[in-house]
Parts: sequence; structure tokens; C-alpha cells
Amino acid sequence: MLDLFYAAHTCSLATHIVLEEVGADYKTTRIDFGSAQQRSPEYLKINPKGRVPALVTDQGILTETPAMLVFVAQSFPKQDLALMADPFAFAEVQAFNSYLCSHLHIAHAHRMRGHRWVDADDTHSIATMQRKVPESVGGAFDHVEAALLKGPWVMGERYTICDAYLFTLAQWLEADGVIPARIPKVIDHRRRMSERATVKKAIAEELA
Amino acid sequence: MLDLFYAAHTCSLATHIVLEEVGADYKTTRIDFGSAQQRSPEYLKINPKGRVPALVTDQGILTETPAMLVFVAQSFPKQDLALMADPFAFAEVQAFNSYLCSHLHIAHAHRMRGHRWVDADDTHSIATMQRKVPESVGGAFDHVEAALLKGPWVMGERYTICDAYLFTLAQWLEADGVIPARIPKVIDHRRRMSERATVKKAIAEELA
Repeated sequence: MLDLFYAAHTCSLATHIVLEEVGADYKTTRIDFGSAQQRSPEYLKINPKGRVPALVTDQGILTETPAMLVFVAQSFPKQDLALMADPFAFAEVQAFNSYLCSHLHIAHAHRMRGHRWVDADDTHSIATMQRKVPESVGGAFDHVEAALLKGPWVMGERYTICDAYLFTLAQWLEADGVIPARIPKVIDHRRRMSERATVKKAIAEELA
Repeated sequence: MLDLFYAAHTCSLATHIVLEEVGADYKTTRIDFGSAQQRSPEYLKINPKGRVPALVTDQGILTETPAMLVFVAQSFPKQDLALMADPFAFAEVQAFNSYLCSHLHIAHAHRMRGHRWVDADDTHSIATMQRKVPESVGGAFDHVEAALLKGPWVMGERYTICDAYLFTLAQWLEADGVIPARIPKVIDHRRRMSERATVKKAIAEELA
């Protein structure tokens, strides 16, 4: 059985939602960031990177959200949530997820995880990184709004893994200082996602 | 025909190598970073993000290296360079590429592109970011060395798109201040890659 190691308020929610969407037989294991459980010896055996999410499968352990989302979609081909049969459509799915992972999420990470890229005690640099976040995350959402989100779903008429990923990262935009009125399509997408039973179930479980 | 927009000394080399590996009918278009051609009105029509690589196909334009690598592999299934038929093996390929894209390449980008995450005129923060690069990039290569590079190729006996991507990012490690002796498997992999005719051809074209 699949076992998703997650923490609340992190990008693990995206994979959690997709596991719900495909009707997978899965369980979840919560990692408590408050007690730094992600760096415990037990968890480092699951994911030596000390981060969530991780997905334990019968064949081994997977990490990295873009890889996990496609793995779940490919393992449940009936729902066709990654449009994998069409190489160009699949590449668009992948390009979107890669943009979220390596641009939008990275910009966001400079608010709370600046110590990855400067010394943790360099308070000046940590603070200036934080001040840039509304602009850098906002700019990434502008690109999603203007160029990537086709509507009604990210890829157009077809609901895909991209929708779960965008919804997940859009949870943080107000805390990142991005004005919601700047990105009305993203906000409308977030509202429609929040009404899906699968999304409600995944969030309720993570916050229980 | 596929048209790869590239710049020398960038991650576009990875897709260039894979186009050679599959024997694709393709051409390349050089973007000159020296004259900021990536931000010219003409190029922004190709890629509004103002970055390379971009791949013009008959169906539209693709960006983001992890997506482009899989697109080329999937379009030429005979060579099977992404192990796509096996969902778990493909997920491992994808997780590796995602790690390179969103961890290793991002750490590297803090040396030359720090202005993405702090104000460009904040010389203190720009300099402290640069000082962290040997540690952050080195740490990412340590993880590749210890946990990801199975040998002889990244995925073990099978040569995949991961090899082209790792080789490309390994071009920069000395300039990033990473001591090669720290990562002997990565260095040996880089040497073996540099001896492939496909790699030699792609590099020669980019540096011509």
C-alpha cells in the first residue's frame, strides 16, 4: 500500500489530493515540523533530504513532487490525470509542474528557508530575501495567470495533476504578500478547487 | 522540425545532447546572453520568461528542461531514454531530474542570478549568497554522489536523460567552488560522458 509522508501546510498536499482523485488505496503518515521530526534519524531513513513529501511504495521510496504526481497518475491510468498518451500535452503538464517547483515554490522558500542560500545568522540577507518575496512570488503567479492557466483548469477543459499542485502553492500567496486581486484567475481556480470533495477530504485529514 | 533555442554554458546543453542521442531531425538557434538577446522582443515571443532553453515543435513551444528531456525521450521511444514503460523507474528518472532542477541548479543560480531573490543593488546580500554557493552546490552534489548516482550511469546499467542533465550541471562545479575530489563518482561520470560522440558533437556546435 502507498504511504504518503506529509506535513500540514506543505507541498505534500498536492500528492495527497491526487491520491484522493484517483481513488488510490493509501495511508498517510504525519511528520511534525514543530518538533523537527523531518530531521529525526527515523525519517532520514525514509528521505535523507529531511523534507516532505515522500511516498513509500512496494518498489521503493519516491520523493520530489513533480515525480510523485506523475507516478500516481501513471499508476492509475484510467483517470488520465497527466495526459501522458500525448507527448506534447504531457510535456505541457510537466513544464507547468516544473515551473511551480523550480520558480514559484523556490521564490516562496526565500521567505522561510533563506538559510539554504545564505548563512543562517546573516540577518541582513535573510531579511532582504524576505522583502523580495511579494515581488518574486507575485511575478511567478503573474506568469501563471497570464500565460499558463488556460481555464477552467490549468490545462483547459481537462482536470490534471497541475490543478492539485497549483491549488497547493496558492494556499500561501497571502502570507507571501501577494495581493489576490492581482491574479483573479488563480483565485477563482483556488475557490473551485476548494469545493472539490477530494480536496476537502485531503485538507481535513491533514489538519485533523 | 524541432528547433532548440540555446545559449552556450547553460542547461540547454542537456536537451541538445538528448536530441543527438535519439538521432532527432532538429536544428538549433543560438541566443546571445552577452547582448541580452534572451530579453529581446523577438525572443520573448518564443519564451516570455526570457530564459533558455526553449524547444519549438510542430505543436507549440516547450520550456523547462525536465519537461523537454522527457518530451524528446517520449517522442523517440525506441531509445527508451526515460524508462517510461515502468512507472516506478520513470518516477526515479523524474525525481532525479527534479532534484537537479530545483535544488542543484537553484543553488548554483545564487552565484550569478542572486538578483532574482534580493534587490540587485543589495551588494551585501548578493555577496553573501555567492559565498554560500560552494557549500550549497557542494551539498547537492554530495547527495547525488552518495544517494542518487547508481553507476555506471545515473539509473544504473541504463543510460537515460538523467545522464545528459547531470553532465550538463557538472560543467559548472569548479566555478561554483566545489572541490572535484569530494565527488569522485560524479567526476568519473562526467569524464565518461565527455567521451561520447553525441556529447562532443553538441558541445562543439554550441562553442563553434
